[in-house]
This record gives sequence, structure tokens and C-alpha cells, in this order.
Amino acid sequence: MDIQMLDEIYKNAREWIEIAGNNIRSKINQPLTVDTKSNPNDLVTTMDKETEAFFVTKIKETYPNHFIIGEEGFGDNLASLDGTVWIIDPIDGTMNFVHQKRNFAISIGVYHDRIGEIGMVYDVMNDVLYHAKRGQGAYKNDTKLSALKKDVVLEKTIFAMNHFWLCPNRLVDEITMQKFVRYIRGTRAYGSAALDLAYIAEGITDGYLSLGLEPWDIAAGMVIVNEVGGVVTDIDGEPLDLLSKHHVFACNPAIQGEVIGILKEGRK
Amino acid sequence: MDIQMLDEIYKNAREWIEIAGNNIRSKINQPLTVDTKSNPNDLVTTMDKETEAFFVTKIKETYPNHFIIGEEGFGDNLASLDGTVWIIDPIDGTMNFVHQKRNFAISIGVYHDRIGEIGMVYDVMNDVLYHAKRGQGAYKNDTKLSALKKDVVLEKTIFAMNHFWLCPNRLVDEITMQKFVRYIRGTRAYGSAALDLAYIAEGITDGYLSLGLEPWDIAAGMVIVNEVGGVVTDIDGEPLDLLSKHHVFACNPAIQGEVIGILKEGRK
Repeated sequence: MDIQMLDEIYKNAREWIEIAGNNIRSKINQPLTVDTKSNPNDLVTTMDKETEAFFVTKIKETYPNHFIIGEEGFGDNLASLDGTVWIIDPIDGTMNFVHQKRNFAISIGVYHDRIGEIGMVYDVMNDVLYHAKRGQGAYKNDTKLSALKKDVVLEKTIFAMNHFWLCPNRLVDEITMQKFVRYIRGTRAYGSAALDLAYIAEGITDGYLSLGLEPWDIAAGMVIVNEVGGVVTDIDGEPLDLLSKHHVFACNPAIQGEVIGILKEGRK
Repeated sequence: MDIQMLDEIYKNAREWIEIAGNNIRSKINQPLTVDTKSNPNDLVTTMDKETEAFFVTKIKETYPNHFIIGEEGFGDNLASLDGTVWIIDPIDGTMNFVHQKRNFAISIGVYHDRIGEIGMVYDVMNDVLYHAKRGQGAYKNDTKLSALKKDVVLEKTIFAMNHFWLCPNRLVDEITMQKFVRYIRGTRAYGSAALDLAYIAEGITDGYLSLGLEPWDIAAGMVIVNEVGGVVTDIDGEPLDLLSKHHVFACNPAIQGEVIGILKEGRK
């Protein structure tokens, strides 16, 4: 994609995110209609749908040849990432949105011929935008994020991960994971994959492990993490396609090999 | 304690917290000297010590008859909470302070003859002060916090808790806790007990479980949680003295009995 086009898309995405964020903030105290999707804790609200519909309308109006993958189903049903594809989560962390009225994000990734070109993760209530263009570094609002530190050692790291990793699960032996959380310095759980990836890019956590993430949860964050030298893969260290669900491991590369080794030992 | 005295102490505490917060913010990007205490992940910095020393100096100057319990040891060695006692954690969430430069709090509780009169939890980097005087409600900055909702059901709650509850431990059978986290709606882990209690008071989480907290971690938060109708006890539902370490369970009272029942089943 040529630079001029990339810049224009970036400018539009940023403007639309601001409009959507303003809209969410202006309605944050209004009563919500909350439905459930795959299970009783997989929430969706009218605001998720309204926000995705807004982005889809804007994109289709402005770029009729672009494709869209969106969490709430207003996008296209794609079998490949050829061409220009917007991957959108209108509200990542809907449980936080419903229960906390904060700690959620708008996540927008723009991919061209399978390559992540633009990533934007907008922490709506804090008015903080994490954003990146491929090859041009990552930013938190106007501040350029530093490259991730190279001297990180596993026993002094903080990992963001769901508590389910320590419960019996079909993926990794929970005893291995229990030993792991006792080995590292600390564990956190924030409830938004998009923000969790932004935090890795910011260097405030060193690793992020998540079970079963969809493309819209990670498409934007991956671009941002890559720009500071971080890595986002599956839990075997393999690249992620953005057309299906994956278990995800994002981290500072200094600890990647060691953690993948530990996860491999515990794989079922 | 008479109202006038209480108001004066409250005003001073608030002023000193603001000064201390400004000082921390002004130095947040300076290099830190980090030491460890009870274990390699129990961190303390020069800023923890400097901040506690500041409060101790101010209190001793202004109220020479008051007592102080402080995390970093600048206070008194008390065998009772008779008289007026300030219970101080200069930086609650030191691991967050060191690794994230945010998500930590100054915590100050003022007790008079064993009764919590004032609680202040200051989220320094967000400039958000949770504060309460006994019997006068709790506030987030200038906004009065609502009484906790009465219609909360356990399966739709969010609990803040450390991942260690799901690992083998000496207190509660981990299988019980693993079932518990699968039963409720969601789990979070934020890494600051003082903020975790403030979040309970705010209603953005419904329960908080923590292993082995010291008086300074909870003295302020308890006053704030009580003011919105929340409860802070040990994990058997018994009252906490603030002279020793406790396992702590704070929650919306609507779910207290049910959770204590579950914890009792799993007690070792």
C-alpha cells in the first residue's frame, strides 16, 4: 500500500475512533441492554452493535473496495486477508464496559495483503490512544513508546493472564501453570485483550497469555506490539493468521523461548 | 472523637496526601533504588520510605499525641488501637509502582479508640482520591459513591483476587477455588489492595479476596467500603483487628454468606 493512502486511512481511522469514543462517553451512564452470546458471561450490548455499525458505515462509504471483519457481524465473511481489510472490535472488554464503565477499548487493525499496516487501541474512558503504523513506531497519544527492554529476566516479569490458566483445561496442564505463576514476579488480569497487548507494548507487563482469542481481539494490538520489538504468536511461538481463533502469547522477546519451553512441557 | 477535631484531621490528611502525590508524580520518571523485603517480589523503594517519612513528620509535628502504624517502619510499635492511630501505606502496590509507574495508591486510615473514622485511598497517577468519614458516606473525588446494589447474584459477579488462590496453598483447597472462579462471571487482578477495596466501594468489582494482608493495606479501604454498605472481614466472615496480618474478604453483603460457605467447604 502506498504511503499516501496509508496516511489517509490512518487519519480517517483516528477521526472515526474519536467520534465513536465521544459517543460512548456521552452515553456511558445511560441504561444498557445487555445480551449474552456464546455463554452467559460473553456479553454484548446495544453500544457494541451501534459502534460497529458506525465504523462499517464509514468504511463502506469511504472505501467501498475494502473488507471488514467485525466482532458483531456487521462486516464481511472473509476467507482470506487479501486486499485491504479492517479488523474491528467496537468494544473490547465488554464485561468491563458493563460492570465498570471503564477498562475497555475500541480496537481497529488495518491489514493489506495479510500484513498489518495500522493498529489503534483506544482506551475510551481514559482518552488514551495507542497507535502504530508499520515501520514507524508505536505511540501512546503523542508520546513515542520505547523499544522493549532487552535485559528482562523471567523471574522478574509480570504476566497478564486469566485465572482459567490455573484451572483444569484442555490445553496446558494446570500444575505447570501454577508453578509458572509462582516462578515469575507477578500476575495481573485486566479483562481486555486489546489493552493487554497495548500494555505489553508499553512495557508495563512483560507477557500476556490468553485462551481462545478472535482476530478482532488482537489485530490492532499485534501491529502496536510489533513496532516496539515485541512478539505476538500462538502458544507454540507460531505466527497467527487472523481468520480464526487462537490461543495467544504476547511478550518481550527476551523471555519468549523460555516461556514457550515451559508451555510445551505442560501441553496436553 | 469530636466532629471539629475529625474535620481538622481530615483536612490535614487530604492536604498531606496531595503534597505527597505531587512529589511522587514529579519524580515518577527518575531512576529508582529498589530493594526487596520478605521475598524477592516484596519490593520497596526509596520513594516508599521518603513518602512515609513525610507523613510521619507531619503527623508527629501536628499531633504529637497520635500514634502511627506504617508499612516502612517509621511509625510506632503498637499493641493496641487505643487513642488516635494513623495507619499508613505510603505506596500500596509497590510492584505496580516499580514496573508500571501507575496503579498504586497512598492509603491512610485514621482510627480512634479502635474505630475507623477516616479512610483515604489516593490513586496517585490518575489523581483520583477515594475518601470517607465514618457515617458521612464515601466519595470518589467530589462524587458521592452510591450504596452498593442489593440485587447482586453470585454468578454475575466480578472478583478481584490473586492467581495464588488457584494454586496449592495452606488455606483453601485450590479445587474449590477453581470451581468458584468458573462459577462467577469474571476475575481480575490489579495488584493494589487499597485500590481493590476502593473498587469494591465503587461497585466495579463485587468481591475481593486476598491472602495475608497487613493493617496498612486495608485500614483506609475498610472505612470507605463500610460507608457504602460493603463488608470487609476475614475469610470466615469474622471482624479484622488491625494489629496483625489477615486473609481478607471484602464484598457486597448480598453475596457474603454464600461465598463464606464456599470458602468454609474448602478450608484446610
